[in-house]
Amino acid sequence: MPLIRAGGAQSGDLPSGEARPGEFELIARYFRPLAARVGTYELLDDAAALTVPGGYDLVMSVDMLAAGVHFFAEDSPASIARKALGVNLSDLAAKGADPIGYLVSLALPSDWTEAWVANFSDGLKSAQEDFGLALYGGDTIKSNGGLQISVTVVGKVPKGRMVQRGAARAGEAIYVSGAIGDAALGLQLRLKSQQAIDWGLSPRQKSYLHDRYLHPCPRIELIQMVRNHASAAMDISDGLLGDLAKMSEVSDVSAVIDVSRVPLSDAVQAAVKTDASARLTALTGGDDYELLMSVAPDRQEAVETAARHAGVALTSIGTFEQEGPPVRLRDADGQDVLLDTLSFAHF
Amino acid sequence: MPLIRAGGAQSGDLPSGEARPGEFELIARYFRPLAARVGTYELLDDAAALTVPGGYDLVMSVDMLAAGVHFFAEDSPASIARKALGVNLSDLAAKGADPIGYLVSLALPSDWTEAWVANFSDGLKSAQEDFGLALYGGDTIKSNGGLQISVTVVGKVPKGRMVQRGAARAGEAIYVSGAIGDAALGLQLRLKSQQAIDWGLSPRQKSYLHDRYLHPCPRIELIQMVRNHASAAMDISDGLLGDLAKMSEVSDVSAVIDVSRVPLSDAVQAAVKTDASARLTALTGGDDYELLMSVAPDRQEAVETAARHAGVALTSIGTFEQEGPPVRLRDADGQDVLLDTLSFAHF
Repeated sequence: MPLIRAGGAQSGDLPSGEARPGEFELIARYFRPLAARVGTYELLDDAAALTVPGGYDLVMSVDMLAAGVHFFAEDSPASIARKALGVNLSDLAAKGADPIGYLVSLALPSDWTEAWVANFSDGLKSAQEDFGLALYGGDTIKSNGGLQISVTVVGKVPKGRMVQRGAARAGEAIYVSGAIGDAALGLQLRLKSQQAIDWGLSPRQKSYLHDRYLHPCPRIELIQMVRNHASAAMDISDGLLGDLAKMSEVSDVSAVIDVSRVPLSDAVQAAVKTDASARLTALTGGDDYELLMSVAPDRQEAVETAARHAGVALTSIGTFEQEGPPVRLRDADGQDVLLDTLSFAHF
Repeated sequence: MPLIRAGGAQSGDLPSGEARPGEFELIARYFRPLAARVGTYELLDDAAALTVPGGYDLVMSVDMLAAGVHFFAEDSPASIARKALGVNLSDLAAKGADPIGYLVSLALPSDWTEAWVANFSDGLKSAQEDFGLALYGGDTIKSNGGLQISVTVVGKVPKGRMVQRGAARAGEAIYVSGAIGDAALGLQLRLKSQQAIDWGLSPRQKSYLHDRYLHPCPRIELIQMVRNHASAAMDISDGLLGDLAKMSEVSDVSAVIDVSRVPLSDAVQAAVKTDASARLTALTGGDDYELLMSVAPDRQEAVETAARHAGVALTSIGTFEQEGPPVRLRDADGQDVLLDTLSFAHF
């Protein structure tokens, strides 16, 4: 599509000039090498064709990220690229869908540089290899503000087998992968330079939390397990408690979790020791991209075995019940815990 | 995905407040009614499932539009919505692909209003009904600048039948649908209030050009014809001559067109009569979203019949040859025409 301009001469969307390549050169240099081999016609066509194997459904999702909203404009372009793919892959993983490919649209700010795009493309390349994806299309335009990225991701599941968010049943166990709250605390480290010192974090703990915020790690190792054994699943992008409430609401059940069983990394545990309010942040803060699953009792052993084989921590944190509010918190003794007390109580 | 914020409380992406609904209310009120009935789970899930019928390939494309770049921020939200879907549908039409659905991501400026979103959603609804699409997913975020929209469109063709841009062969006829240059002249009317008077346009001609810029009309009536009869096709988004050059280059042929045969609306003809440079604008300006096709001689009759039945004008404007530059212009007598002379010569 052309820029709005009186001249009417044809143009790519992207203003070039001063040793910056035009849109077609950008595609040729930095995006063509990422394209799927079959059906994308070297990204020279208007669209790409994808053959979905017989017996499979396609699974699709879209996420948009903006500089200053979902990441910091000064983050490395490769990190931004990895995050943009990672948060989308996380949705596929939660649906039990095997990754196929993605389309990306990129609105570049007026001061974009070729070096930025080159590094962004390197990040896409490394992330798509790690995640098992190929590029099926893209668009590059001039942003009317800062950098914005939209990624549409495409995966596949055997027909009718997409794992839904709204299919949790009373009596099932609630599982989460990995550790909860790392990204929310990692973000706080970014926002307040004194924070790591206040929390008494070691350099290793500080860099671990930082990395967990910057580089979400979609749980693709668990895709098959989710598909085969989870009754319901979603990824935790907006915070454990908020996302758990969403699952309860669409499933029409009530979650009861034991706060002491929510898996926290040693870095988060260290922060909580000096600052009890960090626990509330960990349980309600976003950007974890871990998986939240509902698992029937007769599938729990299979789920735990599969996670062990995949090398991913998996923790049962509670149970869905029939009646009650979307989420209730308990301590290890089964006593009710109020959300407000999370900031100062110990578990 | 959460906003970057220190609090860490879960949140939708979109800042609400002051009587503006949050992201979940927006989805429920304005986007859920647009969702496909099967596989989208009322947009309450992380992803949507799509069953592609056996024997078909999926065809995918993405286009991003920014206020102030691809449309005017003050355009009606419904018009912006129609344009965002239209330009994407045009890509599907050019590939001979039947529309299925779309995913949309919407970055809203800080001063967004519910009324704006409501009208945008109305525009999507009416356009998706006209174009035969349903919504399969979306994301709504806070923009770090003005409004930006990314649409990923999904269609289908019988396996292996996506019509390519790069398959034009020497000896084939070059066809275009509709009329060329309306949108480029319509844009000039928007940019210069005196322009319609200078060109001596009637009120009807002025409003026709204005509408052709604002509301691109993807040629979905020609999809089947393109699939059955065109050797190569693409949509004209960046200007006839530029896009024709692209088709020639990827097909490794040379286009020879008769300038006098390029179909111009009576509005464009009126403008050209008073301002010969308008012809150059018409032939090189973007946003037409007409189809450009290469058709083998033994398919020309079928193509013309199909277009007549579809009620869409279709004009043969030249021929592809084996050797030569990407595009050569001739007049009705077969004499070479230089691009520079288009601005003052008469045909």
